[in-house]
Amino acid sequence: MLPLITTLVLVFATIPRCFSIWPIPRSFKSGNQILKLSNSFDISINFTDPPQDLLDAVTRTMAFIQTDQLGRLTVGRGSSDSDAFGSAQILNRLMLTLELDASAPQPIATEAVAALDARDESYSLSVQSDGSTGVVSANTTLGLLRGLSTFEQLWYTYNGTIYTNYAPVTIINDSPAYSFRGFMLDTARNFFSVSDIKRTLDAMYLVKINTFHWHITDSQSWPIQIDKFPELAQAGAYSANQSFTPEDIQDVVSYAGERGIDVLVEIDTPGHTAIIGASHPDYVACYLSDWVTFAGEPPAGQLRLADAAVANFTAEVLAAVAKTLPSTIFSTGGDEVDTACYAADGPTQTMLNETGRTLFEALDDFTATTHGTLHALGKTAVVWEEMVLEYNTTTLRNDTIVMVWISSDDAAAVVQKGYRIVHAPSNYFYLDCGAGEPLGNDPTGNSWCDPFKTWQESYTFDPLANISSDQVSLVLGGEQLLWTEQSGPENLDSIVWPRAASSAEVFWTGDTLPDGFDRVGNISEALPRLHDVRYRMVQRGIQAIRLQPEWCALRPQVCDA
Amino acid sequence: MLPLITTLVLVFATIPRCFSIWPIPRSFKSGNQILKLSNSFDISINFTDPPQDLLDAVTRTMAFIQTDQLGRLTVGRGSSDSDAFGSAQILNRLMLTLELDASAPQPIATEAVAALDARDESYSLSVQSDGSTGVVSANTTLGLLRGLSTFEQLWYTYNGTIYTNYAPVTIINDSPAYSFRGFMLDTARNFFSVSDIKRTLDAMYLVKINTFHWHITDSQSWPIQIDKFPELAQAGAYSANQSFTPEDIQDVVSYAGERGIDVLVEIDTPGHTAIIGASHPDYVACYLSDWVTFAGEPPAGQLRLADAAVANFTAEVLAAVAKTLPSTIFSTGGDEVDTACYAADGPTQTMLNETGRTLFEALDDFTATTHGTLHALGKTAVVWEEMVLEYNTTTLRNDTIVMVWISSDDAAAVVQKGYRIVHAPSNYFYLDCGAGEPLGNDPTGNSWCDPFKTWQESYTFDPLANISSDQVSLVLGGEQLLWTEQSGPENLDSIVWPRAASSAEVFWTGDTLPDGFDRVGNISEALPRLHDVRYRMVQRGIQAIRLQPEWCALRPQVCDA
Repeated sequence: MLPLITTLVLVFATIPRCFSIWPIPRSFKSGNQILKLSNSFDISINFTDPPQDLLDAVTRTMAFIQTDQLGRLTVGRGSSDSDAFGSAQILNRLMLTLELDASAPQPIATEAVAALDARDESYSLSVQSDGSTGVVSANTTLGLLRGLSTFEQLWYTYNGTIYTNYAPVTIINDSPAYSFRGFMLDTARNFFSVSDIKRTLDAMYLVKINTFHWHITDSQSWPIQIDKFPELAQAGAYSANQSFTPEDIQDVVSYAGERGIDVLVEIDTPGHTAIIGASHPDYVACYLSDWVTFAGEPPAGQLRLADAAVANFTAEVLAAVAKTLPSTIFSTGGDEVDTACYAADGPTQTMLNETGRTLFEALDDFTATTHGTLHALGKTAVVWEEMVLEYNTTTLRNDTIVMVWISSDDAAAVVQKGYRIVHAPSNYFYLDCGAGEPLGNDPTGNSWCDPFKTWQESYTFDPLANISSDQVSLVLGGEQLLWTEQSGPENLDSIVWPRAASSAEVFWTGDTLPDGFDRVGNISEALPRLHDVRYRMVQRGIQAIRLQPEWCALRPQVCDA
Repeated sequence: MLPLITTLVLVFATIPRCFSIWPIPRSFKSGNQILKLSNSFDISINFTDPPQDLLDAVTRTMAFIQTDQLGRLTVGRGSSDSDAFGSAQILNRLMLTLELDASAPQPIATEAVAALDARDESYSLSVQSDGSTGVVSANTTLGLLRGLSTFEQLWYTYNGTIYTNYAPVTIINDSPAYSFRGFMLDTARNFFSVSDIKRTLDAMYLVKINTFHWHITDSQSWPIQIDKFPELAQAGAYSANQSFTPEDIQDVVSYAGERGIDVLVEIDTPGHTAIIGASHPDYVACYLSDWVTFAGEPPAGQLRLADAAVANFTAEVLAAVAKTLPSTIFSTGGDEVDTACYAADGPTQTMLNETGRTLFEALDDFTATTHGTLHALGKTAVVWEEMVLEYNTTTLRNDTIVMVWISSDDAAAVVQKGYRIVHAPSNYFYLDCGAGEPLGNDPTGNSWCDPFKTWQESYTFDPLANISSDQVSLVLGGEQLLWTEQSGPENLDSIVWPRAASSAEVFWTGDTLPDGFDRVGNISEALPRLHDVRYRMVQRGIQAIRLQPEWCALRPQVCDA
């Protein structure tokens, strides 16, 4: 066995260590030369009429390179690199080039909301060690943006000198393994401001997460102001200061789009809607009744889905929001419909009896109404897994995207029904798990989805587990999620980052690292890079948590067991 | 059974709900009258020559009352209270009176570091609903400070009016059930700045925690600059910017003292000292050797305790720090001595053989040296439980204070040996548990002390479990602790607060609430008050986390199961 062991050790030694880039590009070659950044470094664009948001992205990248001021994570924080500063070459320029359509470049924000199967985030990057002009090339401005986020992560600062120690760097046609790489935030259990969301989008940009899944409403509050239905937020927001105006929504959408991020808004229906009862009590079953009996958590109340008027109202609400959004996808939720509530609700039972329908047949009609309205607006519906696996829905369009949340084990069943899926499994990706529970009188207070999902656990997720090879194309990607029963602006950064970067690499880099090793089981190689992106986030004002003592962060692999 | 149930419901209804005070005073009576605070409200002192730190405390209380701006946690955030504003009486003045020694009042900072059995934190408070002058009376300035922290928590703000809805409030001789109520921070695994510590002290003041246990050094870094031994921090701090100067230490001690907080510094020995090897390699066994074999976590290395020169050096280091501190207590640590390391260490084995001692006999000598030095400085030693339960130490002085950390089950055994204890059990009070582990290559990454310790779990701790009635006086109190392998300034507030307030009430209020109910099992009554102090912390710039959706926080008991 000795020769095999020796071979493994030697091969392991060739794994690039301490690279600063997260997610690691799918194709990646680098050296170990020092290359300094010129004091007059600039980023040029080699085509005419670049869109304003690309120019803005270049300005941000220039600023980040100056302000990141990240010391390399090694003992001495780069002092050993400085010996080579005198003889190192200097990079004066990075050139951005478009491979296709350079005559009519689209804004990043436009490319960012293209349909998932038409979105092109690929790019190539070359930074040689001789100081010659670096190049980022791509088919789209969105690809150029991805290249910029990679380029930013090459640079360290020591004693005022900005440099990389990885030159030359050659990345050929890096592109994501999966088209959907998301992060979900619930702004209903507790409220988050636009600035909280923007800071989150900044972090998402850094790790190439391309979808902000905005779970904007829930039973606890309705923080979105809709011109056509002002009563919903007036009665349902925690306060006027804790709601999003239409301008706030557009502000978030614009900010996201400029950073290559699509905004998937979710208005969860027909469950998780108690707060609608504050303005439309007739539309809500079990409103504020005993939640232990009629809801998964307080307060109880869900839309009277069997009522055609309620279905039409819901469709109008969804349409009023969806039509203001550039995204091609919109989520109607569909999780945790409480059948006990409807069974006990007189009006619902009367309507079901009058029309001779079962509850799920009525849900089918409700869904046909709401999804039909969205389809007419050009939107593809997104739903939670119960719509397919529990409610026997028959009217779902084939192109519906299904989010698998209850367990990763459910993914295969959804795919077998022919639907496209997004992995959002509670057992890997729920960031809120393991930190207690929000009920008031439980002396232990453990969470239903203990334990805490470590970055390591999330990182080992296999998107294709139990998926047959002919169904691989149905797996769109995945997302990590923050439900906010016990979170608010106070711990947003610390509970999300850097953990949510785990799935960013799972779904960008895929199963195989650029050196040919499997990603799963490669925690030890990943950790130094994750440290690097975490420290960079902190430099950018995102309060991402430590993963190890600094002693370990400065000594890659030394704190492995 | 019906009459019994009815009785219980009626009695339950008399439990004061939504009181804002944490910890709840041991004697407490209040009403439900609105009392407004005058625009010209002031706090007067009825004795001459009040110490400057009492005057400063009054200034801070005046400011907090203005700046807390806390809306009452009910639907409408106080709008229902405002109906009574017009007819409510107005409080113009609070008077601070000293019951004893009013002729020579001591500074708060002096009273705060009195020996534990001589410390007097008791106070009485009266705020009547007729607008007559309120009174806080106490035997000491420290007691007055405690009264001020209670007084501050009476006040809400609605639409510019500062008011309480609990008048009249009468608290007679509130005093802590236990003299030691602490919070421990590890500043060695990751570094925290003086401002991080001060912010933590602010939160501690609010909930009457009276001891800052500063675990200042550990194997990963030595962030304390000691004039006599500058090499320790020069080689052992993460960087010059990540170490505490003597002035920093005094700054923290002063800031704490003014807030009624004693600073218990710990220099952990003989284990947890690898970093001393960076400047004194000859003093450290197993320095940077295989940590899996020779240490509980990386890096390996602990003082060569069998060497008399090392014992003398250690005593000098401890003395150099201890002599600068006003506290009567100082911790020498003593946890997790790794016997495998010493067994494999040639110099240690040689010294043991030459002197004919076992390892633990040598540890006894080492302890006699270090503790003897501390005793000569007037300091009482504090140690971790292994010193008593595992190492068969015979030279410990009887007055040594022992911290029980491995398990709450170990408390009784320590008490049975006659030592005073501080409860610091990992199974109730470790704030870091349940959030992963710091090793680099574990694909699950669960923590050794899963699960997360919820505030509810901590709140149900019984300090006297398995303690016989004649040993009750040996139980000094307890503390919650943050070990910082995976924490830093980024998540300090959110991982500590409001959870660390749990033990503040456990050890101030004791087992019985002022209405006669048992504390344990009273989660439901405690939660609204904990919400209140959490929201107040946030108003004061401490990023304490949410415990429930705001919908629940505004509706006490409605989100109980």
